[in-house]
Amino acid sequence: MTSLLERTIASVPRADAAVAAETARLLDAKTKPLGSLGRLEWLACRLGATRGEVVDHVLAPAIVVAAADHGVGSRGVSAYPREVTRQMLANFAGGGAAVSVLAREAGARLVVVDCGVDRDDASPDATSDATSAGIVDAAIVRGTDDLTLGPAMTREVAVAMVERGIALATELARDGVEIVAVGEMGIGNTTSASAIVAALTGAPVETVCGPGTGLDAEGIARKVGAVRDGLDVNRVTVATQPLEVLARVGGLEIAFLVGLMLGAAGERLPVVLDGFITGAAALVAARLSPRVVDAMIAGTRSPEPGHDLVLSALGFQPLVDLGLRLGEGSGAALALSVVRACVAILTEMATFDAAGVSDREDRRALTAG
Amino acid sequence: MTSLLERTIASVPRADAAVAAETARLLDAKTKPLGSLGRLEWLACRLGATRGEVVDHVLAPAIVVAAADHGVGSRGVSAYPREVTRQMLANFAGGGAAVSVLAREAGARLVVVDCGVDRDDASPDATSDATSAGIVDAAIVRGTDDLTLGPAMTREVAVAMVERGIALATELARDGVEIVAVGEMGIGNTTSASAIVAALTGAPVETVCGPGTGLDAEGIARKVGAVRDGLDVNRVTVATQPLEVLARVGGLEIAFLVGLMLGAAGERLPVVLDGFITGAAALVAARLSPRVVDAMIAGTRSPEPGHDLVLSALGFQPLVDLGLRLGEGSGAALALSVVRACVAILTEMATFDAAGVSDREDRRALTAG
Repeated sequence: MTSLLERTIASVPRADAAVAAETARLLDAKTKPLGSLGRLEWLACRLGATRGEVVDHVLAPAIVVAAADHGVGSRGVSAYPREVTRQMLANFAGGGAAVSVLAREAGARLVVVDCGVDRDDASPDATSDATSAGIVDAAIVRGTDDLTLGPAMTREVAVAMVERGIALATELARDGVEIVAVGEMGIGNTTSASAIVAALTGAPVETVCGPGTGLDAEGIARKVGAVRDGLDVNRVTVATQPLEVLARVGGLEIAFLVGLMLGAAGERLPVVLDGFITGAAALVAARLSPRVVDAMIAGTRSPEPGHDLVLSALGFQPLVDLGLRLGEGSGAALALSVVRACVAILTEMATFDAAGVSDREDRRALTAG
Repeated sequence: MTSLLERTIASVPRADAAVAAETARLLDAKTKPLGSLGRLEWLACRLGATRGEVVDHVLAPAIVVAAADHGVGSRGVSAYPREVTRQMLANFAGGGAAVSVLAREAGARLVVVDCGVDRDDASPDATSDATSAGIVDAAIVRGTDDLTLGPAMTREVAVAMVERGIALATELARDGVEIVAVGEMGIGNTTSASAIVAALTGAPVETVCGPGTGLDAEGIARKVGAVRDGLDVNRVTVATQPLEVLARVGGLEIAFLVGLMLGAAGERLPVVLDGFITGAAALVAARLSPRVVDAMIAGTRSPEPGHDLVLSALGFQPLVDLGLRLGEGSGAALALSVVRACVAILTEMATFDAAGVSDREDRRALTAG
């Protein structure tokens, strides 16, 4: 019997080129110069090709924020202390975080997932947890081990987290969600993402690592060191299998997002990516199942240097480019408003015929001939 | 007695730096790394500085689309026939144009202004005008004269159109509009805008002109020729006064938009620009009153080559960069959703204190010290 992961990888459909072509034809009949809506037109075709039908209504969006703690976080690779992951989990659910606000703006359901947050932290200034109502508990372990000392997690835990991500995608599809934006939270997770991106692209570690949430030059140097140590200790090279890379230097939330992306693509749900961390997850998913890339939409460009490596590797050009470097899904949430506008154009704009507007001479000639 | 134009130019206020600083302080207290919302944070400060108070509610938006015909349109400088301006005016008001759809998406009032559209066109395939209900009639003349043969309009008409734009801004402010996005329509108007931009920036004509709504290389060459002829015949140089440039090689809708921008800035309404044509109007407005620039927000980057010249000249970086080259205000309308998201962040996000989230060590140290 094959595993859920294997079945899901096999189930990711090809993008439907006929639907993309039909969408382009519909757009060309609208009262506007050919191609003048630029990447909104590309987006309309992409959405249709993923869903397997021309989009004819507003797509019901969900934003999934996956959070987990990282053993490497104790290595001075983040500007923030570990307990912030747990505190932000409560802030997401409580409605006060950036992604909470932007999810409301986008009319999107916000799904906060605990993928392994250290909730028993007993640091002196730990505040009591806000209610965990509204937080999906998908945790198996409460944080990864320190990747500079050995594997971040076992292969079994990695696969289990991926499969929990797949399961959530199936559940969202069943609940009527039609497009999924992804985000993450985890103090220390740019280190993990940097290790994944360095391993899967072969890029030198120092070209991948950046300031994350706000490291200075010294902190970045520590991060570069931690990533190098992690790759060395775990004998990760460009030849290492993607699931092994994920287990040895990845994160629990990253593993979950890999599964969520595969599962969503399998359900024909377009996936809107956020920044660098979700990009690292997308790279792993793409190595497991290249067709998953066709279901993905780059929501935002992160200033984190490794993100451009991800975008190039996947051939993506993001919808939003406003220097956001927060994560959480904030850029993906902003991109959902572009998706919404794109669908409105496709479904509400008049055609040349209906509006009684003259088309350009050469196109009329082509049509007549 | 001074004219309305002179009084308006004098009335444009300085941006309020104290409000910008107060806005930045509020953003720094939110549960996010410092500066991590990138240009959304810049935007929040800019909106506040223009309005003279920290933004504490969703700003009521209007999108003003100014339309007019161009004598130079008969010179083979557009891919579309002249009657399309009139037909699109009806399409805007009828709700079927891209900007109509995007205005609804943005929750913005759409104000369509006839600034001199040739409504008596009697070409064989002219359809009957759709209702002109909802179209503001600001026209003095029904289209400009051919700028390759002499002035597009008299200085008196230019000033009158500018003043009608000012009057609309005053009216919108009185009606409760709090932010104005601008757009335009006019077959042939990229030629006029190119002439203005070449004159005001001193850039070589061939670096300013592009395909507009879809010219081929031959068409672009015709446009370059028309712009050169227009500048020569009208003796326009980099030394020509901006109002003279506007009258001799400008457009009626461009003149109207110049006034709208000045008037809006005078009323402390932020102005969201669209693409190349509105950029040309912004350049003229900036030459008349440099402070108006502080009230402007670049909504979108147009692929039209002259638009980068405008953005550089004004020091702008656009909010949306999706290859839109439609005009109408479509890019400005999309940018309004970024404005909305920015205001939601400012008004709805929790602070570190309120959410019980630990701030970064160094900032806590700074605060304590």
